[in-house]
Amino acid sequence: MSLRVGIVGGGQLARMMIAPAVELGIEVRVLAEQPGMSAALAATAVGDYHDAATVLPFARDVDVLTFDHEHVPQEVLATLVAAGVSVHPGPDALRYAQDKLLMRARLEELGMPQPDWAAVDDASALQDFIDGHGGRAVVKTPRGGYDGKGVRVVRAGTEADDWFAALAEDGRGGSLLVEELVDFTRELAQQVARRPSGEIRTYPVVETVQRDGVCAEVLAPAPRGGERLTEVAAEIGVAIAEGLGVTGMLAVELFETTDERVLINELAMRPHNSGHWTQDGAVTSQFEQHLRAVLDLPLGDTSASAPWSVMVNILGGPEDGGLDDRFAAAMAAHPGAKIHTYGKAPRPGRKVGHVTAVGDDLDDVAYQARAAASVFLG
Amino acid sequence: MSLRVGIVGGGQLARMMIAPAVELGIEVRVLAEQPGMSAALAATAVGDYHDAATVLPFARDVDVLTFDHEHVPQEVLATLVAAGVSVHPGPDALRYAQDKLLMRARLEELGMPQPDWAAVDDASALQDFIDGHGGRAVVKTPRGGYDGKGVRVVRAGTEADDWFAALAEDGRGGSLLVEELVDFTRELAQQVARRPSGEIRTYPVVETVQRDGVCAEVLAPAPRGGERLTEVAAEIGVAIAEGLGVTGMLAVELFETTDERVLINELAMRPHNSGHWTQDGAVTSQFEQHLRAVLDLPLGDTSASAPWSVMVNILGGPEDGGLDDRFAAAMAAHPGAKIHTYGKAPRPGRKVGHVTAVGDDLDDVAYQARAAASVFLG
Repeated sequence: MSLRVGIVGGGQLARMMIAPAVELGIEVRVLAEQPGMSAALAATAVGDYHDAATVLPFARDVDVLTFDHEHVPQEVLATLVAAGVSVHPGPDALRYAQDKLLMRARLEELGMPQPDWAAVDDASALQDFIDGHGGRAVVKTPRGGYDGKGVRVVRAGTEADDWFAALAEDGRGGSLLVEELVDFTRELAQQVARRPSGEIRTYPVVETVQRDGVCAEVLAPAPRGGERLTEVAAEIGVAIAEGLGVTGMLAVELFETTDERVLINELAMRPHNSGHWTQDGAVTSQFEQHLRAVLDLPLGDTSASAPWSVMVNILGGPEDGGLDDRFAAAMAAHPGAKIHTYGKAPRPGRKVGHVTAVGDDLDDVAYQARAAASVFLG
Repeated sequence: MSLRVGIVGGGQLARMMIAPAVELGIEVRVLAEQPGMSAALAATAVGDYHDAATVLPFARDVDVLTFDHEHVPQEVLATLVAAGVSVHPGPDALRYAQDKLLMRARLEELGMPQPDWAAVDDASALQDFIDGHGGRAVVKTPRGGYDGKGVRVVRAGTEADDWFAALAEDGRGGSLLVEELVDFTRELAQQVARRPSGEIRTYPVVETVQRDGVCAEVLAPAPRGGERLTEVAAEIGVAIAEGLGVTGMLAVELFETTDERVLINELAMRPHNSGHWTQDGAVTSQFEQHLRAVLDLPLGDTSASAPWSVMVNILGGPEDGGLDDRFAAAMAAHPGAKIHTYGKAPRPGRKVGHVTAVGDDLDDVAYQARAAASVFLG
């Protein structure tokens, strides 16, 4: 094809779109924040995505503009749309990924299942919410959080005073989001793809295992899920994608509660860590699907291509010895494991790659993926 | 990884190494024959591979040099090796892929099963061979043939006079290769990967279907193969890879005869059309495996990841309307088909891409792949 997709952001999500783009014959162009990032191979421009004067010339030269992250400001997005650029997901959808208070309010309008929540403006209001929810709550900054940043479990209204102070300084003011601390048995994630013209496809719901607020591993499909869970999660995903007007990939992070309800935790409007297993375990990877969706091409089959897939993240360790020496050891010990790296310098806790294993037996698959990933921890 | 592979040749085989290289973190650099070729995304140099002064500076900057084709002259390869460049496959192996007479002679030394053959210098010698083999034979130019070019079925010694004349003009002289016309029931192909340090892995033997001398489709594994065929083909592949000192991927094209023998037809020392199914149907694709092998990294699992895979080539049709319009139609009708394109302008009979389908039922898988590919024929 002679179609051209522009991606704002040069991280690993942009990088992982390169492989399916090459195979489909889609030209990918990346506007990277700096040189030498994960997606450097396709980085045709380097510049600041906060600056419409930087993004617009980049965007004029592509058939559709999409994103490695959700941080492009609404003002910049509005300039692009006004200039006739095809932007997917569009600003009206992205606002809900950019502001968790907006998201909670919109999901409430849609009647979606979610934790109790409130917008709080000061310690007193926060204390009231805590008092009404068993003495604990989760406070979140509505904007800018990821991987556990901007999220705090509190037991007293004063424990978010620094964030209230920061909001006041910010000039735009605003509230914090407070949510009930959900009594969950596990976390799940639902991937959905939706085209501008409306076609929508859901992936099998998966189980995500978090450590220190960061996704550690994903089991696909979610074990002991059953048909009901699969259907409920897919219905939630479809309702959100349609209700928020999402185009491209949508990831819905979910809690499964002790009383067997499914509640919406977070949203991401892009390929997401919880969907990396699809590169090796589904007919159509989330990266290929995102490209197809934003280009308004027919979506690919979202079926799992093996009974079980397990994805384990590779995190940078305490020493930055580099991963090079460990590749050969991991490959030798686990010839069936699929290793994906992001071309990033390892730093403690930084995601620098992931390993996926697929097969017929969940225990064996999980063992292979974990063991291969552990080789990289040195 | 911070390993760097240089590929001489910018065709689709180089292009298809880009995707696994990105995922593994291997940097690929391509020396393309001209700008805008299939592997243009990674083309860091453009130049003539017949010229050592062009290839050597390119090669000095990579950890290992490998190839999109087997046409780099021995003189150039010798210069590279003398300069300390790591070249895989090396010149001593490549000579057998470059000269079919050398190959036949070497396979005979190794006791490999192959058609009767001879080197013939004139029409009279050719006539003698024809007379001794039922009145028919296959004449091949030892060098430079591919996809049925340089191959001719003859019934009279005079039918290769133009080739004898061309050989005489060439200055270096030489002979033509003549082979018995094998009475085969079908054609097969065996993929083998071998590292410089000796590790070797074989893929399941596949059936290849040729039309007009060009590979049209591949069924993997070869239907009705059985354990004996799998073993025999793998043994032949291993014996050739070791006997000829091949490093990287080796493809052995085979005839299965009416009396159930397996005879060696052709060799290719690189990823090969008969192995494209591994991108979607095997744990480790031949393109990832080639990179691992030439870098002397541990080889990946060569198992099929689904019971059946069928690959169908997309050939350019009589009109060059481009493929763009047909993508959406193919994707819509066959959401499970994996489409791979080479970024080449369609010309009649030119391979411009391929489609692979995988699944549990061979008839269904073959139908999906053929139907999706046929959409591109317009």
